[in-house]
Amino acid sequence: MTTKRPGQWMAEEMAEQPEVLRRLAARRPGVQRAVLGLRPDGLRGVTLVARGSSDNAAIFGRYLIELATRVPVSLAAPSLHTLYDATPDLRGHLVVAVSQSGRTPEIVTVVERCRAAGAVTVGITNEPDSPLGSATHVVIALGAGAERAVPATKTFTAQLAAFALLAEALGAVPFDGDDWERVPVAVADVLADSAAAEEQAGRLAGRAPLITVARGLLYPVALEAALKLKETALVHAEGFSVADLRHGPIAVMDRHAAIVTFAAPGPARDDVLALGAEAESRGATVVRVGVASGEGGAGAVDLTLPPELPEALQCIPATVRAQQLALHLALLGGHDPDRPAGLSKVTATR
Amino acid sequence: MTTKRPGQWMAEEMAEQPEVLRRLAARRPGVQRAVLGLRPDGLRGVTLVARGSSDNAAIFGRYLIELATRVPVSLAAPSLHTLYDATPDLRGHLVVAVSQSGRTPEIVTVVERCRAAGAVTVGITNEPDSPLGSATHVVIALGAGAERAVPATKTFTAQLAAFALLAEALGAVPFDGDDWERVPVAVADVLADSAAAEEQAGRLAGRAPLITVARGLLYPVALEAALKLKETALVHAEGFSVADLRHGPIAVMDRHAAIVTFAAPGPARDDVLALGAEAESRGATVVRVGVASGEGGAGAVDLTLPPELPEALQCIPATVRAQQLALHLALLGGHDPDRPAGLSKVTATR
Repeated sequence: MTTKRPGQWMAEEMAEQPEVLRRLAARRPGVQRAVLGLRPDGLRGVTLVARGSSDNAAIFGRYLIELATRVPVSLAAPSLHTLYDATPDLRGHLVVAVSQSGRTPEIVTVVERCRAAGAVTVGITNEPDSPLGSATHVVIALGAGAERAVPATKTFTAQLAAFALLAEALGAVPFDGDDWERVPVAVADVLADSAAAEEQAGRLAGRAPLITVARGLLYPVALEAALKLKETALVHAEGFSVADLRHGPIAVMDRHAAIVTFAAPGPARDDVLALGAEAESRGATVVRVGVASGEGGAGAVDLTLPPELPEALQCIPATVRAQQLALHLALLGGHDPDRPAGLSKVTATR
Repeated sequence: MTTKRPGQWMAEEMAEQPEVLRRLAARRPGVQRAVLGLRPDGLRGVTLVARGSSDNAAIFGRYLIELATRVPVSLAAPSLHTLYDATPDLRGHLVVAVSQSGRTPEIVTVVERCRAAGAVTVGITNEPDSPLGSATHVVIALGAGAERAVPATKTFTAQLAAFALLAEALGAVPFDGDDWERVPVAVADVLADSAAAEEQAGRLAGRAPLITVARGLLYPVALEAALKLKETALVHAEGFSVADLRHGPIAVMDRHAAIVTFAAPGPARDDVLALGAEAESRGATVVRVGVASGEGGAGAVDLTLPPELPEALQCIPATVRAQQLALHLALLGGHDPDRPAGLSKVTATR
């Protein structure tokens, strides 16, 4: 066995993200050509197929692709296809499946059934030569390379970027080519500010539950942050949209709890900041991830996001903030984030 | 103020469920006529709109309506409509909105926008004269009556039944009129077996986290069970599908954890039972809710479901099992389940 520091692999893979994102952004013209040749006339709907961490990337895709195409986007219920033999008629539909390895049997089976039911299919994977790559009409190869750490980092942000590229190829999106050039720089800036994340992770230590919250386009970041905190730092974390948190489990936000809010300039920000203020008034520890307004008060943030990106693409650096919190909280708890107990990398689901 | 025992309201409202379900089942012909007159020729898709506890009922609807109609069903992302002004073209689509009070402003706004975008709309609510009732083409009135306890019980199972009635009116479902007559009896049988639930709640006490798990048609029960445990007993609970649990947070299932599995005879059962066995081998406390096979071993259950219902309708008595666990766990923890700290009944979301 090689000698490595705890968290070394995760940190190294996080550090590769600017380069992975730069390569993906450079593939914009190719993705646009491939999707243009594929898109059905009169697109009727889009269905996304994913599990686990990829599922959180798919929720980002769900928002952004519906925004771009103005047709309803659904997340597949895989068991309807694999257990109940109930694949719908999908002529005129686009089906997008996400799997890091391209080898999750359930995902491949669902895609094959959707294709047989008339869908055109896109695969998003690190492994274009995998069964998922063979099963789909078009593959967006993430090119993130092998991950040695169990918690997916560079693969997840690459999946977010792939969904953004796909949405852009399908319709009108609130970002452009200049923004794509800013993404790798923004992520590098966040990675360089690791000390601030370590400090904020210290404020989360020993708190339970950890609640992560966002709304609108950043909502998937709250879900991914909770998953990363759970699987890396082995804490009890759960992600919510502001609206769902107010509808029920807000009761758990007391002085024992900590809440991490994700917000960027856009129509969802005020609601997220208000929820953070409410949590604070209940005595909870609040870590605000956002773009500093320079005014203090409601605009104050504890962990900054780069100001130069539009809201939709802020998902990528905001996820990197969540990765940093998970990494440092794991180290503070004496866990090796690279190989948390009880987790394995490839999961077989019928 | 009147004097009441802790949990008295919740228990009384749970006890009303057989009668509420009997009345709803009697409304089958009316629902079928109304939906027949409403259903677009060449139904293109179905979108469900809900929040919080109603959202878990909508996930049941998502499975069952896609099974019945064989067209893709999606859960709306309300913020796309209310914050980003991005309502898709919904001509030929059915939109179903669920709100106990019919007064959640966000839900009403989303339905109004969907209707303006061409959708035919159905409201599922306790209050047919509410803004939601006025905004939709057809209303399925739950008739569950007022709820004094904060955790929704009879409203939730009525929502499940309403979705089952709607699915039946839209296509082929795996149950029939005889099954509808069995539902109130099955729920009464479960309610009469409260002592068993109290005993199992005792096994959950002091365990953290509480993980609830199911797969396929019973998956929404796992989500609702977690929500009910959180908001009633103020514990940290989270619901998963078996597949998603295996893909990540299985690490938290150790000897401190407790897991509640929901399974009924059908294609998902074996996978759920296998997950329960795995959790037990990791040292977790496991409470199995299911139909007793009478053989012991893998067929053993800790809390029984009535054997006479098909899998889809087992969601209703299985939810009552979850209510019982939440009620008794709250009482064991010294909380009044009728009015948990920090929760209010009506939630305003922009």
